Amino acid sequence: MKIIRSIPEMQTVSRNLHNDTKKIGLVPTMGALHDGHLSLLHKAQQHSDVSVMSIFVNPTQFGPSEDFNQYPRPFEEDCKKAEEHGCDILFVPYAKEVYPDTHMTYVSVENLTETLEGASRPGHFRGVTTIVLKLFTMVTPDIAVFGRKDAQQAIVIRRMVTDLNLPVELIIADTIREKDGLAISSRNSYLTDAERIAVPVIYKGLSRAQEEYNRGERHAEKLLQLIGTTYNDTKLIKTEYIAIVDAETLRPVDVLTGTTLIAVACRTTQSHTRLIDNIVLGGHL
Amino acid sequence: MKIIRSIPEMQTVSRNLHNDTKKIGLVPTMGALHDGHLSLLHKAQQHSDVSVMSIFVNPTQFGPSEDFNQYPRPFEEDCKKAEEHGCDILFVPYAKEVYPDTHMTYVSVENLTETLEGASRPGHFRGVTTIVLKLFTMVTPDIAVFGRKDAQQAIVIRRMVTDLNLPVELIIADTIREKDGLAISSRNSYLTDAERIAVPVIYKGLSRAQEEYNRGERHAEKLLQLIGTTYNDTKLIKTEYIAIVDAETLRPVDVLTGTTLIAVACRTTQSHTRLIDNIVLGGHL
Repeated sequence: MKIIRSIPEMQTVSRNLHNDTKKIGLVPTMGALHDGHLSLLHKAQQHSDVSVMSIFVNPTQFGPSEDFNQYPRPFEEDCKKAEEHGCDILFVPYAKEVYPDTHMTYVSVENLTETLEGASRPGHFRGVTTIVLKLFTMVTPDIAVFGRKDAQQAIVIRRMVTDLNLPVELIIADTIREKDGLAISSRNSYLTDAERIAVPVIYKGLSRAQEEYNRGERHAEKLLQLIGTTYNDTKLIKTEYIAIVDAETLRPVDVLTGTTLIAVACRTTQSHTRLIDNIVLGGHL
Repeated sequence: MKIIRSIPEMQTVSRNLHNDTKKIGLVPTMGALHDGHLSLLHKAQQHSDVSVMSIFVNPTQFGPSEDFNQYPRPFEEDCKKAEEHGCDILFVPYAKEVYPDTHMTYVSVENLTETLEGASRPGHFRGVTTIVLKLFTMVTPDIAVFGRKDAQQAIVIRRMVTDLNLPVELIIADTIREKDGLAISSRNSYLTDAERIAVPVIYKGLSRAQEEYNRGERHAEKLLQLIGTTYNDTKLIKTEYIAIVDAETLRPVDVLTGTTLIAVACRTTQSHTRLIDNIVLGGHL
């Protein structure tokens, strides 16, 4: 596995790969690699000749009161995991090269980013779309793989790729879960033992909604109630939002007809860890 | 000369040219081609193997009360001029393909765009940077040529290219002028006969400032006064702004030391035509 830190070097390597008609697959991450990331890497390997995983804890997508400094950065372990899973290039650019002091250009997807995560985390998606575009111009991938766990992120990035005519094929990979259903996330490491026992309720609520949907329930209100009731079983999480929205426009739906996203965000009450999860009904992202 | 209207076709043609290791030079225009545009085309030809001129009257860079509908669109003449001057590809995308109803992604260069033209035309530069990035992803040029007449535009685009790590070399070409000094512009066609006789005063003011600068004057206040006095010679123009700013940061300077931009915007009093012009002292863009 080659580790590249310089942006111009990454661009040169990519140009040479394209000249050799190699297909580049990119997996953008913030490191702290877990089985979720590694499943994205495997997807990238299936669809490309050369896999590039980027690790960059992107300051512009964290709010001022968020966990940017606290965010885990186990670089040695990440290198080991990436190499063991057959990653070809680990791209770890320096923050000062990605965002020099003179940086002032941002990419925004309007309409899709004021709701759900965007409402809870103002400026978050502007940071996400800007870094993803920059990674695309640095790595020039043919395909890029994102996790469905960050469903709104995937939808926003797909909108950006279409709107800016970017020559990248997006692959949205399924959420990887622990045995008890908890969606794997780097932030799970913040949880107290008691919280860790309680938080599978997040997916349990979603699964119940899925079952009711499978039985024919199409009224959003009914499904919202069901999830809310499930979450009331524990005092260790506080719900930030439970939303049932159209999977393309992210506008709330009353009756589920097309592809629908049920997205939830919670905060635990002991470690104040923010956790998100979602299911997609009637289609896929 | 090949005329391309489809975005996917343009992308395919560009990909094939790159595969043949041809260098693509892009000249983005809004049509109504004049000697200024043609000089940009010649620059592109000097620095590339295949010249692409785009014609697109970009709705997102016009304000609601601006001249989008009135803007001249002499398509037949434009084709003729481009072909006569050796343009290889004329790229004229359909507005509905460039901006479908679902479009919601924008690129903004902050800090540089609230001043000068940005102050007079809110949202203008967001429209400019968005369309330029889209043209770059459609045409994937190796070099792109912009006119120095739109100096702030050139500075903003350069910032975007640097910040987003775009693999495009920018060339900023000198302003082309009529014999009496008037900067050539598609909007000159709006002028009344009386205005046309009066408006060379715009460049005359700038030239006097240049002369004083050459004689050693370095105080912005003195140069501003000189230009203002010159413009008071005619009642057919109203000054919108006269600004002396650092050519990189666009912040006003009191004493001229580094590369400095003197930029002016006027509106004529009969046809209400908005005209801009500038000079660069102590260096170049």
